[in-house]
Amino acid sequence: MPAREVVILRIGHRPERDQRVTTHVGLTGRALGAAGMYLAASDKGVVRSIADVVGRWGGDFFCEDNVKWRSCIKEWKASGGSVVHLTMYGLNLPDVVGEIRPRKKILVIVGAEKVPGEIYGLSDYNVAVTAQPHSEISSLALFLDHLFSGEELRNEFPGAQIRIVPSKAGKQTEGR
Amino acid sequence: MPAREVVILRIGHRPERDQRVTTHVGLTGRALGAAGMYLAASDKGVVRSIADVVGRWGGDFFCEDNVKWRSCIKEWKASGGSVVHLTMYGLNLPDVVGEIRPRKKILVIVGAEKVPGEIYGLSDYNVAVTAQPHSEISSLALFLDHLFSGEELRNEFPGAQIRIVPSKAGKQTEGR
Repeated sequence: MPAREVVILRIGHRPERDQRVTTHVGLTGRALGAAGMYLAASDKGVVRSIADVVGRWGGDFFCEDNVKWRSCIKEWKASGGSVVHLTMYGLNLPDVVGEIRPRKKILVIVGAEKVPGEIYGLSDYNVAVTAQPHSEISSLALFLDHLFSGEELRNEFPGAQIRIVPSKAGKQTEGR
Repeated sequence: MPAREVVILRIGHRPERDQRVTTHVGLTGRALGAAGMYLAASDKGVVRSIADVVGRWGGDFFCEDNVKWRSCIKEWKASGGSVVHLTMYGLNLPDVVGEIRPRKKILVIVGAEKVPGEIYGLSDYNVAVTAQPHSEISSLALFLDHLFSGEELRNEFPGAQIRIVPSKAGKQTEGR
């Protein structure tokens, strides 16, 4: 696991409609080296789904709901952390990732459809993963992969109950 | 746009439940250099959403529903194309992408929760983007980004009605 601490802040989540997408955001963060996700909404379904994956697949990714985004950002910055907001309006990933990479604590804000205008000013970096509309899930994935230079693809998750044995064709797992 | 032709085949799509995720799969494919998406289900909502984005944001990404996956794979292979199936059970992306990169025609199979076992044998490559559970959207994003070596992040989309002007903070667009 990297020495860098990266945590996601998911904002604009609407409990019914966004449960699946927000769960994918959290799982993508976990698989690609983030330490956890703050959810600026109340949704125990998301918290449970992610805890369930962590229990079976290992690691110690956390998911906390009912987080207030303004104080979360403020505290993060007060503790010396940097704030990156993923938005299609920002500077293109390959142009800024080199400047972000040396930072030790990074809060990654992942918005749903509407994001309060204030977020743009509060963030140290507004980063676009292409200036095209696609998905906050793919944006987060590419941001983390470029941040960690692809090394996160070989992360291990200690304490797993189940582990996949990579294979050319078919499904092979080992459990305990 | 790359000389390589990459097309997505989305299987296992359930019209109500998966509309949003499949749309994100298509838009991710479009933004990251794929030529189009075949959808092995009937869902005009997905086709319309993607056509709408193409109309406003440019390029010529296609989306075709009601595709039969078996004949789609068969025809693709008959025309000399390679088939890559994204699955957490496959070989890890960094270990196989170098072998896939020289191929000129690539069909990328993106499954939903359940994938017919037959797909593993029909595919030339079963590729895992980490052996952890996350999202077919992030798997597709990382596969395309590694395939195109990050160059797709600077793709242009001719004929756009709207274009974002990347900025440090705020939203800036230009239209015609």
